[in-house]
Amino acid sequence: MKVHKEVKSDIEIAQNAKILPIINIAKSIGIEKVDIEPYGHYKAKLSLDILKKLENKQNGKVILVTAVNPTPAGEGKSTVTVGLGQALARLDKKAIIAMREPSLGPTMGVKGGATGGGYSQVIPMEDINLHFTGDIHAITTANNALSAMIDNHIYQGNELEIDVRRIVWKRVVDLNDRALRNVIIGLGGAVQGVPREDGFDITVASEIMAIFCLASDLQNLKHRLSKIVVGYNFKKEPITVGDLGVEGSLTLLLKDAIKPNLVQTLEHTPAIIHGGPFANIAHGCNSVLATKMAAKLGDYVVTEAGFGADLGAEKFLNIKTQSAEIHPSAVVIVATIRALKMHGGVEKQELNTENVNALTSGLKNLQKHIETIEEFGIPFVVAINRFITDTDSEVMAIKKWCEERKYPVALTEVWEKGGEGGIDLAQKLLNVIEHEKNTFKPLYKNKQVIEEKIETIARKVYGASGVEFSSKAKKQLVEIEANGWGELPICMAKTQYSLSDNPKLLGRPENFTITIRELRPKIGAGFIVALTGDVMTMPGLPKVPAALKMDVDLSGQAVGLF
Amino acid sequence: MKVHKEVKSDIEIAQNAKILPIINIAKSIGIEKVDIEPYGHYKAKLSLDILKKLENKQNGKVILVTAVNPTPAGEGKSTVTVGLGQALARLDKKAIIAMREPSLGPTMGVKGGATGGGYSQVIPMEDINLHFTGDIHAITTANNALSAMIDNHIYQGNELEIDVRRIVWKRVVDLNDRALRNVIIGLGGAVQGVPREDGFDITVASEIMAIFCLASDLQNLKHRLSKIVVGYNFKKEPITVGDLGVEGSLTLLLKDAIKPNLVQTLEHTPAIIHGGPFANIAHGCNSVLATKMAAKLGDYVVTEAGFGADLGAEKFLNIKTQSAEIHPSAVVIVATIRALKMHGGVEKQELNTENVNALTSGLKNLQKHIETIEEFGIPFVVAINRFITDTDSEVMAIKKWCEERKYPVALTEVWEKGGEGGIDLAQKLLNVIEHEKNTFKPLYKNKQVIEEKIETIARKVYGASGVEFSSKAKKQLVEIEANGWGELPICMAKTQYSLSDNPKLLGRPENFTITIRELRPKIGAGFIVALTGDVMTMPGLPKVPAALKMDVDLSGQAVGLF
Repeated sequence: MKVHKEVKSDIEIAQNAKILPIINIAKSIGIEKVDIEPYGHYKAKLSLDILKKLENKQNGKVILVTAVNPTPAGEGKSTVTVGLGQALARLDKKAIIAMREPSLGPTMGVKGGATGGGYSQVIPMEDINLHFTGDIHAITTANNALSAMIDNHIYQGNELEIDVRRIVWKRVVDLNDRALRNVIIGLGGAVQGVPREDGFDITVASEIMAIFCLASDLQNLKHRLSKIVVGYNFKKEPITVGDLGVEGSLTLLLKDAIKPNLVQTLEHTPAIIHGGPFANIAHGCNSVLATKMAAKLGDYVVTEAGFGADLGAEKFLNIKTQSAEIHPSAVVIVATIRALKMHGGVEKQELNTENVNALTSGLKNLQKHIETIEEFGIPFVVAINRFITDTDSEVMAIKKWCEERKYPVALTEVWEKGGEGGIDLAQKLLNVIEHEKNTFKPLYKNKQVIEEKIETIARKVYGASGVEFSSKAKKQLVEIEANGWGELPICMAKTQYSLSDNPKLLGRPENFTITIRELRPKIGAGFIVALTGDVMTMPGLPKVPAALKMDVDLSGQAVGLF
Repeated sequence: MKVHKEVKSDIEIAQNAKILPIINIAKSIGIEKVDIEPYGHYKAKLSLDILKKLENKQNGKVILVTAVNPTPAGEGKSTVTVGLGQALARLDKKAIIAMREPSLGPTMGVKGGATGGGYSQVIPMEDINLHFTGDIHAITTANNALSAMIDNHIYQGNELEIDVRRIVWKRVVDLNDRALRNVIIGLGGAVQGVPREDGFDITVASEIMAIFCLASDLQNLKHRLSKIVVGYNFKKEPITVGDLGVEGSLTLLLKDAIKPNLVQTLEHTPAIIHGGPFANIAHGCNSVLATKMAAKLGDYVVTEAGFGADLGAEKFLNIKTQSAEIHPSAVVIVATIRALKMHGGVEKQELNTENVNALTSGLKNLQKHIETIEEFGIPFVVAINRFITDTDSEVMAIKKWCEERKYPVALTEVWEKGGEGGIDLAQKLLNVIEHEKNTFKPLYKNKQVIEEKIETIARKVYGASGVEFSSKAKKQLVEIEANGWGELPICMAKTQYSLSDNPKLLGRPENFTITIRELRPKIGAGFIVALTGDVMTMPGLPKVPAALKMDVDLSGQAVGLF
């Protein structure tokens, strides 16, 4: 593998790229001028009318990119997603990428950006990583407007008899801000509100983000918003947004945000970037509208889901496919030799040393995810995303392992070579789509009882031997059934680092049980969140946040995003 | 005065209007395509390069629209601003309007919108009243990112020894949310942050909003941001954004927001709408960049300042003219017969009854504001903004009163008739600009000591007999001088309802003193805020918020903005 003479940073590559006017990109996939609203010259919102106009057109084939359990070594799932889209385009396929919008919190915290990397990026990367077209700000505003309405309702006489101790709706900011996790509000005396405990989540953990990503149109968005349970009254009955009568104003705040955003990759492949819910507390996929629109406009849609196949892909396949009414054609499972070595027990600082034994041991993690996708009945290809430090013996070992098991595998060099580095993956993918059987169906039926649905995920996706419910969760199961919410799908909130609920158990843990500590009904989103541990819904900043390197140069260009 | 056969709501008028592509509007004032970034088809951001390109062009004449002290009767200052711009355009003058961006808090609270009214509106009114081009969201994000950095710094060891009891930087939301006025954050134990008192202001009260509106370019913005004092260390020394090293990232978050926004009026007059600071805790005018750009692109700039002439205009003339290096050509003082009757002692529910005596008594309020503008040495015209309920006798009385005093006066019917209803005002204004002497200068020199500067404003603008300083303010005066901030201009925070610091004293109070309770140095903005009472920096929602009427219809159109 050749090293670039001059290794450029992601932002340098992105800023030096030739970028086409977004109207040209739109035109290339048949979007009429009336259906595009430019936001600057290189971003645009797409009218929902496109879906109506193309209602009778056959959907393109949807390819889901997922990965092994994430490690500090990095897997490059977004980079492979972008690179694969570019590769399909090079093979003259009409491919469209559908991805999530980055949250500012992680961008300013540790990540510095989330738009792919190297020569497989979506651009303009600064805009996408900063405010983009304002969707996340609109969601923040709608979320907090609802909070203000709840507290105002209580202050103005509390006609609905909301129990301030049982409000479950939290405020949000799209930042990493641990000091806001637990707060007391309404202090200062009688004219300043009613004191109560509250907390802030990061915006991408808001139920409104999940709703935004599952809604099929504006009216469905409003309907879902009206069903949000914000808390309970003194009789412990649920109080909804509909009871407060504010679903109209919340929908109004989201009426433009709900339109998917069109951008392009470094190689001018169209990319629709829209919505970005957490993959633990929520379902971790870009909006249904983005995926559906990409499927109408393209012959191939390359999309991704958050974290590993046990979280994002499981939810994509069990939850999102139903809301979106899509039938996925294939799955790409991304791994890196470095990440597999970590799953095999190697520490981060020793990753540059060849270690075939650790790699072989770590392959068990990949194997479990492969088995999960087989369980769903979808063709797949394993994508080994190459790093400069990978040795030939390591590459040989992984190839041999896949061949022995008849797993389709491709090496990708999309970071270094862009679409060219993903040609092998694209070809193998086209091959499995054409020749392999696809018997996709979700792993459980919504009609099953909640315990059964959770058991199914735990056993078939995590490889657990069983599920335990805390006494709190058992009590909640009864309440959820009593409220008539028992037939909703399950959104598991589990650590992303392990197949189990213990983040320290890498590789493929065995003989473990999953403990459900708490259940949180998200009636607007339309799922029951099952929490298996302390799930972080508001990250903190590290000692040296990425923000300290961010700046604007004299010409007004962004500096320090990566 | 004729009544329209069919009285349409503001939003109906706006939604039925013919709107031109924003690129046409830009072209009409000579903006090159390379300097415009469309946000949809009807809004655009303007490149700051325009200012560089037109550096040597003479400035257009700047006309400031102000008003009597606001009353619940309404004065229609924004409507007159828009109508006057349209009227100048009808007289074939190259006129550009410069206005503030509405805050979502009041829009969802009581106002329902802030884009003029009737046939004198800026459009698209829904977009402008909702998220517009995201400027305020960018400011919210920058403000709260700074808060997160402060709390993270403390959590990570507090190297700067920030005293958590002396942090003056507050968080913001762009909503009316009284429950957030006083909060305790950082609760939950050792890994959740450090507990402290905090509070949320509305975004338009953020010092970053004031800075945004006073900055002359991106580098000046960054310089001002670095000087923000966020709090004090245990030695009571100021701690700045520069000390935390985050001015670069805050500037990056604002790099697009800082570009002024171009829209149009119902009659296609260009309007630059940018920034919107409070007129009590801040200076209450649109951005310096918007005003300067309008002055370079047009021959006449019609701009407004918040509240009455004692607040917005005073700050425009004493603070903004210096940052913007502009010399105002004339002032329009807006009054309504209804408002003057309230200043003369009439209750709101009796405003529809003719009452010439109360009107005559209320004219004292107008007279004080006229005297203030005379004090500044600027030509002016009084604009009486007509309402359907005004009687002929009332109109005669006010005309006679002005004639006796040789005050130029015009009746405007811009709400009902658009620009046509402002022709008389426009002609009288052009006349005073051409023929009256203009000896404008600020009322005080920055080099004067703080007490003198405050005394000057209190005596010459409010008509007070003197100023008293609380013991707290006296202590702060010493600290401010010691920190070297004594030569900054003063930003008075006073009730908007009265010339005095008692909101109940309407008309023209006499023999009163102003009490300065507290001083707040805003070093980034570059002024010292002097608080004369409880100044509201976070409004609350009424029992029935405007939001309850807001909705989206089946076609995706906004409903319930007005």
